[in-house]
Amino acid sequence: MASLYQTRLHAGERLAQGQAVALPKEQAHYLRSVLRLTPGAKVALFNGQDGEWLAEIADLGKSSAILTPIRQLRPQAEEPDLWLVFAPVKHARIDFLAEKATELGVSALWPVFTQRTIVSRVNEDRMRANAIEAAEQSERLTVPQVLPPAKLAAALSSWPADRRLIVCDETGKGPPVSQALADNVYLRNAVLIGPEGGFTETELDGLRKLPFVTPVSLGPRVLRADTAALAALACFQAVAGDWQSGRPDFKADFNL
Amino acid sequence: MASLYQTRLHAGERLAQGQAVALPKEQAHYLRSVLRLTPGAKVALFNGQDGEWLAEIADLGKSSAILTPIRQLRPQAEEPDLWLVFAPVKHARIDFLAEKATELGVSALWPVFTQRTIVSRVNEDRMRANAIEAAEQSERLTVPQVLPPAKLAAALSSWPADRRLIVCDETGKGPPVSQALADNVYLRNAVLIGPEGGFTETELDGLRKLPFVTPVSLGPRVLRADTAALAALACFQAVAGDWQSGRPDFKADFNL
Repeated sequence: MASLYQTRLHAGERLAQGQAVALPKEQAHYLRSVLRLTPGAKVALFNGQDGEWLAEIADLGKSSAILTPIRQLRPQAEEPDLWLVFAPVKHARIDFLAEKATELGVSALWPVFTQRTIVSRVNEDRMRANAIEAAEQSERLTVPQVLPPAKLAAALSSWPADRRLIVCDETGKGPPVSQALADNVYLRNAVLIGPEGGFTETELDGLRKLPFVTPVSLGPRVLRADTAALAALACFQAVAGDWQSGRPDFKADFNL
Repeated sequence: MASLYQTRLHAGERLAQGQAVALPKEQAHYLRSVLRLTPGAKVALFNGQDGEWLAEIADLGKSSAILTPIRQLRPQAEEPDLWLVFAPVKHARIDFLAEKATELGVSALWPVFTQRTIVSRVNEDRMRANAIEAAEQSERLTVPQVLPPAKLAAALSSWPADRRLIVCDETGKGPPVSQALADNVYLRNAVLIGPEGGFTETELDGLRKLPFVTPVSLGPRVLRADTAALAALACFQAVAGDWQSGRPDFKADFNL
């Protein structure tokens, strides 16, 4: 949907007034050859720490771009601490999941291998690239972390006790998601989604016994794993996350 | 996720005990060449009217399949009357949208052309095929209708007064979606999603004046049109739809 900024890029460096930042080859290519911008053009930059900055292109070569932050457009703000923990699926669906989960405001993406997970490798760089692109387009001030893939059992055995784990229970035995989330008192949360074949009975039994686990039901229909992930994240943000507030109220007072 | 039925097909004919039904070429091919089933194998059938039936393959040729319904597994049940009205997007994203919206329980898919809609044609057959496949896999008892594409202005001028139109307002000025939906008193509902470029100011002003329109905000981030559609549908089902109940409690007492 319509964005206030035509061009918004994630920067790997700190952002401060007048301190030049370099963007790598891919972003230089995007600015130069895709958008056909030239020095003097203005874009927005964010890095997950220093808010969002209006910046001017100072130099634009084939393999690098130098930009000068002019002034801060938005300060860095708190965002929900919400992980998506998911059994990896096929490439196209992982791309999609990383994109959508980023738009829906997750703070981390964590691939975990369950007993019925068929995919054995995860391309973390590709997931990170999808997350960065979605963060740029969705006006987020951060990019979700991509946590190193782990086995589900290992992830659970080192699970932080102060982080609620919302488990989408495909047997439909959990309480309705809106009810379960309305009672949420945790500041840190995570949504766990099984593989296409579902969790095993052993996994589900184990999960239900953990004190930080809240099973939830996503209604009477069978959802694909990626649909369940997005539905649970949207419900979380609507009921217990940051969708109680609207879009930030700031003016786009620059033009490209 | 795991389904009780390994094979579940949509039938175009009425279903009644012992009354043979014919399935067309594509489904015959699927049963014969993809699943490698033979006469005597059992599958589940549904047609949107007569519930779900256990049926036995009586005859399986290259271009047709004859099945005999044995007994009803589930009676037909009420489902939420929820349309997704959307500005058509690119092919891949429409496929995705039809699949996900079907899993999320929409009763109709209606492509509408808005002022900023770039796509000028919609492949209704392809959308219907995606909806059928998703309905088969999600254990729905119905397939969403695909309504004939129309201009937004025309759709609104003939809009039924007893159907609430939930408009995802990308300016973020609407009330939070969970709050707006909790007050819902309509039995018939629809979610409207604009094109990637958003609604025009004229369209939004016009929409806000209509008595059946409820604008909602989907939080502080900019969502792609397809993400917004799924998020709004999931929130609707969780807060005002049929996600207050769990999965149907029936036993899978047949094996393939």
